[in-house]
Amino acid sequence: MGRLNINNINPHVRAAEYAVRGELAVKSEELRAQLSKGATGLPFDQVISANIGNPQQLDQKPITFFRQVLSLLENPQLLEKEDVLINGLGYKTDVVERAKWLLKHCGSVGAYSASSGVYAIKESIAKFLERRDGFPANPANIYLSAGASSGVNTLLHILAESPKSGVLVPIPQYPLYTATLSVLNATCVPYYLDESKAWGTDLEAIRSSYEKAKSEGVDVRCIVIINPGNPTGASLSEADVRSVIDFASKEKLVIMADEVYQTNVFIGQFHSFKGVLRKLQQENPGKYDDVELASLHSVSKGMVGECGHRGGYFELVGFDPEVEATIYKFVSIMLCSPVIGQCLVELMVNPPQPGEPSFELYDKEYNGIANGLRERANALHKAFDQMEGVECGEPQGAMYLFPTITLPQRAIDAATAEGRKPDEFYCMRLLEATGVCVVPGSGFGQREGTLHFRTTFLAPGTEWVSRITKFHQEFMDKYR
Amino acid sequence: MGRLNINNINPHVRAAEYAVRGELAVKSEELRAQLSKGATGLPFDQVISANIGNPQQLDQKPITFFRQVLSLLENPQLLEKEDVLINGLGYKTDVVERAKWLLKHCGSVGAYSASSGVYAIKESIAKFLERRDGFPANPANIYLSAGASSGVNTLLHILAESPKSGVLVPIPQYPLYTATLSVLNATCVPYYLDESKAWGTDLEAIRSSYEKAKSEGVDVRCIVIINPGNPTGASLSEADVRSVIDFASKEKLVIMADEVYQTNVFIGQFHSFKGVLRKLQQENPGKYDDVELASLHSVSKGMVGECGHRGGYFELVGFDPEVEATIYKFVSIMLCSPVIGQCLVELMVNPPQPGEPSFELYDKEYNGIANGLRERANALHKAFDQMEGVECGEPQGAMYLFPTITLPQRAIDAATAEGRKPDEFYCMRLLEATGVCVVPGSGFGQREGTLHFRTTFLAPGTEWVSRITKFHQEFMDKYR
Repeated sequence: MGRLNINNINPHVRAAEYAVRGELAVKSEELRAQLSKGATGLPFDQVISANIGNPQQLDQKPITFFRQVLSLLENPQLLEKEDVLINGLGYKTDVVERAKWLLKHCGSVGAYSASSGVYAIKESIAKFLERRDGFPANPANIYLSAGASSGVNTLLHILAESPKSGVLVPIPQYPLYTATLSVLNATCVPYYLDESKAWGTDLEAIRSSYEKAKSEGVDVRCIVIINPGNPTGASLSEADVRSVIDFASKEKLVIMADEVYQTNVFIGQFHSFKGVLRKLQQENPGKYDDVELASLHSVSKGMVGECGHRGGYFELVGFDPEVEATIYKFVSIMLCSPVIGQCLVELMVNPPQPGEPSFELYDKEYNGIANGLRERANALHKAFDQMEGVECGEPQGAMYLFPTITLPQRAIDAATAEGRKPDEFYCMRLLEATGVCVVPGSGFGQREGTLHFRTTFLAPGTEWVSRITKFHQEFMDKYR
Repeated sequence: MGRLNINNINPHVRAAEYAVRGELAVKSEELRAQLSKGATGLPFDQVISANIGNPQQLDQKPITFFRQVLSLLENPQLLEKEDVLINGLGYKTDVVERAKWLLKHCGSVGAYSASSGVYAIKESIAKFLERRDGFPANPANIYLSAGASSGVNTLLHILAESPKSGVLVPIPQYPLYTATLSVLNATCVPYYLDESKAWGTDLEAIRSSYEKAKSEGVDVRCIVIINPGNPTGASLSEADVRSVIDFASKEKLVIMADEVYQTNVFIGQFHSFKGVLRKLQQENPGKYDDVELASLHSVSKGMVGECGHRGGYFELVGFDPEVEATIYKFVSIMLCSPVIGQCLVELMVNPPQPGEPSFELYDKEYNGIANGLRERANALHKAFDQMEGVECGEPQGAMYLFPTITLPQRAIDAATAEGRKPDEFYCMRLLEATGVCVVPGSGFGQREGTLHFRTTFLAPGTEWVSRITKFHQEFMDKYR
């Protein structure tokens, strides 16, 4: 063959789109680099990466208990100087005990673990799931992963039997799903969330997408639910979860429940698919026994926000043992997820309890982060409320707002002239004028004829918000 | 569709084989669990995992400098108590300085980095490559990865245009390559290493495999070289590296140089593909400018042995910018490699230097590990030398020995009766009798009619070696 070029590499990788780190993100990093080299010609002095849910890049401090334990796992020699740790550095006894317990079970964090994770950590996750859902969980069905992304990648690999294999994906969605299905050359079957009902999950929309795909010969085998939603933040009611499970059961679809935002809920309440499934099974003996559910969680979101550690897990319910064995083999090829990230998962699911030495500080830090997120979300929402042509529902959860924008025709024409989608055009101008990087709605999918953007509400202060409002007014004035 | 079962999942994932963590490894974990629950009926009291190069699971201690720095990255609050660190805990000033430097550049290890890694770490790797090879390296062409495995996965994804896309892979090989090609539904083009020449890389063997594949319509686009070899330990001479580059240049093949064992060399010397390529380019202006090389390295092997941290990188030379942009997009979908693992890569490539406070201990630990590996390799080799029907070349490098075994016909018949390959049968009996887990040669590929197994030489002491010798004698006596 000739040299590798864009036309002879894997066409499915070429076709994948991942806007969260696309052209805008690359451009924002260039601008950041210019500023750090002292550039003065730019109309802002700081780049705000509101394109990605990366709390610790912005303002969020890690939780002290977690990091103290991790420091001991990285340097177990410190455990030989317990008096210095406790009296000199202020480590509490439960920090020391937890580190010893984790080291006992993983040996060294520098050793590969079993492919699906350290068994004792899987047991700890199972206990968390039992407390959360009120039903037993089996550690043997839990797989530690490098963030939830790697778990999604594994599960979609297994499902993709042929190009006809279809997966129902909510639109708008976090583009990991569409990008991975593209790489796998499988079929994405989009179903639209209902913006008019606070981005609710509408079973009729799911059913009609499913029927349409089936009639086109797609072998639909899975439904993805992101709950709470990304980018929408919407939480499913228990009734909605029940109806999705019932539908999946009837149509024999695997349910993939992306529940990484389960603690980021402002409106409504989180209902886990596992918990609701077990209730349904209890209420209807035999009826839902065949349901296959994979639910995913992560240390990257919530009040933990430890994205860089790449920790997560998924739990399988109702999977055929031979399929599970294939999943085990598949994850083995990459050996194991980062062991220190696995330990962080353990800390997340088993944090200090009332009465324990580290509880008070943990609780204060946790609530401080939760309250901060809510306040920032509300401030940003208020600003959007006052912007011409911008509509944004109340902040519901996750780390994002996803406003609709209505742009003047002249702006849409200017975008077309530049070869861009109108929302991309808007976001590019926003970045260039303010240093604020957001993601155009087209990166997540949106109904034909509507325009949105996604912004995190992680950045501190209100100065960056006023930069957006000012830009928006000028943009509207220019193109009106 | 019906429920997921072994016959309707992704057939390419189903077909992938990964013996390093296959049936034997699973069985060994079961035995370990039995022992830890107090089982007494087994003929051994300890399971030895000689199936996988996992130094810190066995005896190897992490290097103090590395782990001290990591402990500060995990808990930066410790930096506020520098006097306690230095006077109470014995941290040296260069540990504190390095931690501050890394934190300055990655912010928090809990934040996502750029998709291809923290830029300052890429600069540090580039400097290491310049020192190692004597030629410049460009940080923009360096990609941090979750161990080398994840880098291999990325590169093979890009190369796999269609089922006809072929990759030359040495046999025996680390099964990551065949497994990943299987998952990608691309074609593995095996070329045999020459056991009679200490597992040397034979250009004629490569050429004839290449020609044969081409004549069968395979679009061969890449050659994988594992140097030093896994499972063989063999290092390529500079002349061999030159001839591989020359061949790849003529046939326009991407070179994928898996150099994760570059410091594990007992016989011969490590010659990096990058260094030799740059020399060739210097000596022959214009002739080798089109060569595309990806070289991979990892924190998992060498004297670092930090497998659990999942750190590594690859450097691209001569790749088309649009192809590099696609690689960047692909790695973005998984966001970034673990940031603490990236920091460990930085420490590996930039360790303490003579005169710096941590140097003396670092140097002592590093050499202690290197000498220990050599001694263990020699002791194991000596034992194999005395075993009937076992032939094993001198230990050359990496972490493995890969002896040939000649089994009596009755053993081969017994294996067939059990539905196993003869080497699998032998390794299973070995595990059951001794608790020592090794990997059958068929897991790496071997010439028709030959049998091998791979064992690490990481386990301490000689007791486990004598268990193998005793078992082997009994096995031979039984089936002779």
